[in-house]
Amino acid sequence: MEPPYLKNDHLQWLAMEYYDLNGSSIEVLERPPTALEFSRLVNASRPVVINGLELSATRKWTNGYLVRKMEMRRISVAVTPDGRADAITEGPDNKLYFVEPFVDHMTMEELLSRLATNSNQSEICYLQSQNGNLYSSTYFGGQAERDPSEFEPLRKDVPPEIPWCSEALDRSPDAVNLWIGDGKSSTSIHCDPYENFYTVVRGAKHFTLLPPTEGYYLKERWYPHGQYTRSSNTDLQMTPSPPTVSHVRWSSILDPNEPQALPPEAHPIHVSLLPGQTLYLPAGWWHHVRQAPEITIALNWWYDTEMRGMSWILLSFMRKLCSPGENCEEESMTN
Amino acid sequence: MEPPYLKNDHLQWLAMEYYDLNGSSIEVLERPPTALEFSRLVNASRPVVINGLELSATRKWTNGYLVRKMEMRRISVAVTPDGRADAITEGPDNKLYFVEPFVDHMTMEELLSRLATNSNQSEICYLQSQNGNLYSSTYFGGQAERDPSEFEPLRKDVPPEIPWCSEALDRSPDAVNLWIGDGKSSTSIHCDPYENFYTVVRGAKHFTLLPPTEGYYLKERWYPHGQYTRSSNTDLQMTPSPPTVSHVRWSSILDPNEPQALPPEAHPIHVSLLPGQTLYLPAGWWHHVRQAPEITIALNWWYDTEMRGMSWILLSFMRKLCSPGENCEEESMTN
Repeated sequence: MEPPYLKNDHLQWLAMEYYDLNGSSIEVLERPPTALEFSRLVNASRPVVINGLELSATRKWTNGYLVRKMEMRRISVAVTPDGRADAITEGPDNKLYFVEPFVDHMTMEELLSRLATNSNQSEICYLQSQNGNLYSSTYFGGQAERDPSEFEPLRKDVPPEIPWCSEALDRSPDAVNLWIGDGKSSTSIHCDPYENFYTVVRGAKHFTLLPPTEGYYLKERWYPHGQYTRSSNTDLQMTPSPPTVSHVRWSSILDPNEPQALPPEAHPIHVSLLPGQTLYLPAGWWHHVRQAPEITIALNWWYDTEMRGMSWILLSFMRKLCSPGENCEEESMTN
Repeated sequence: MEPPYLKNDHLQWLAMEYYDLNGSSIEVLERPPTALEFSRLVNASRPVVINGLELSATRKWTNGYLVRKMEMRRISVAVTPDGRADAITEGPDNKLYFVEPFVDHMTMEELLSRLATNSNQSEICYLQSQNGNLYSSTYFGGQAERDPSEFEPLRKDVPPEIPWCSEALDRSPDAVNLWIGDGKSSTSIHCDPYENFYTVVRGAKHFTLLPPTEGYYLKERWYPHGQYTRSSNTDLQMTPSPPTVSHVRWSSILDPNEPQALPPEAHPIHVSLLPGQTLYLPAGWWHHVRQAPEITIALNWWYDTEMRGMSWILLSFMRKLCSPGENCEEESMTN
């Protein structure tokens, strides 16, 4: 059952009260929390930057090491003409689509070499397969042998779980992902139904965050689906998907950092993560992500969020709405 | 700033989704949780019954012991004609009021003797001063010597804090209270802005609970304030307070256990607590409380709830509303 639409004045009230109570500062921990300390932070459901999470990847993962370990294995890489995978893009018919990247396959050496190139390129690579490309739920379901990874040789540098986090949440991750890109790629603003731990191994990640209460400012709308495709060796083409593919609900704000992209009442929070720093991003928080110009490598652990209680329902309640007459009609198309 | 009123269809959606996801069963723990286990339970924000919290009061507090320890000290006791302190009651003008009890002062011996009496009485006693009558926030603020208690001789039988609870919530209680009554008294349905630990020492407490999402069924309205008074030795009289006293927002449901008091869509949860059992009642949960016919003694610890994040705001959002035209006009009178 779809919730009824909330009116603007409800959403404005929630956004303002949330800001009045919480402000827009972010706590920084000088060392990883204990499980109990972290459980308390989950209760507060505010982003936290955590220093001191030591991973051998942060010391070891030079280009040479990665190429040597990965050898000639072919890995799945998102390719787009503009560095915007999974984003709202104008199609050949001048309509807006939610467009997924073309997925190409190449060696680690080829990926790193294409990322290091500063010249203008007609195609931008971003390793962002985000399907549990290091460890998937199958791995944690006790069937590790049935969870092959394109990055198997790198697994020993990445713990499948963050101990204090698994203990606090009383579960194993749902997915652990490796991300490799550079400043030419960005991730459009969205939110996930996961507790998210994002750690930077090399380079830097620049997050623009908004609390769940400010999703209202992001103008989610329903967009038809499209995908970049390539026939033989031609350029990438945006191909609208057939009408049987569900429309996708996505923010209409292409880059929240552009002037006037957000209304003056919005309170975006800017967080830059350097190597060795970890961001805890609670479920439902909106995030747009940019990267340093140089090669940026990151890892993330997604944990299922607590479904008991009210949090999940209230996140849905705030999100599944738009103002009457503002393109909400299409919602029913996907049901 | 007052939130705008939510419409009935919003509130119904929240109530139904909450029930679909959470059901109406209650977890029972066979032993007190660790601080970490308890922190996870706070995250879920569901009531829990906890066995095995051992207090010396549960072994020691016979009538003889209480009278011997308390000697001739005079203690504050709520007195009403009907056992309904802090409840909606018809006044002499046939209007409804939120009526507070007359507060009388008597010895422990007198209280226990009046409670033990089964004959019809024109006045019902209930020790329910709930102002931190054992330990108040002053005590925990480091000024124990400035926190006198009417029950000072009983303090050594009651720990000021529940260790795993204070550790999980990272704070000391705001108030610790002693309650002594019998089946002739009940507590009208209401919710508190506190995490509540309620433990039974003697007798039994029967709770009727509703989640915050079902407060909608309880028809909160604004009522003028009144108080039971007594001039010299006459009977108790309900005296309306002067208009300068703020109206009180309270549920119009006098007893949710009466047939048809709640709509069929409501999902009340019934929990009976026996000596040695403790109820964790999360902030914002609605509760109506009855007692066993015999003398029932209980203790409760109130901890301030987490104000960071969204929970508090969403509790206010769901509660501060009623349907347009349903007596919401008076809301502005108290601002």
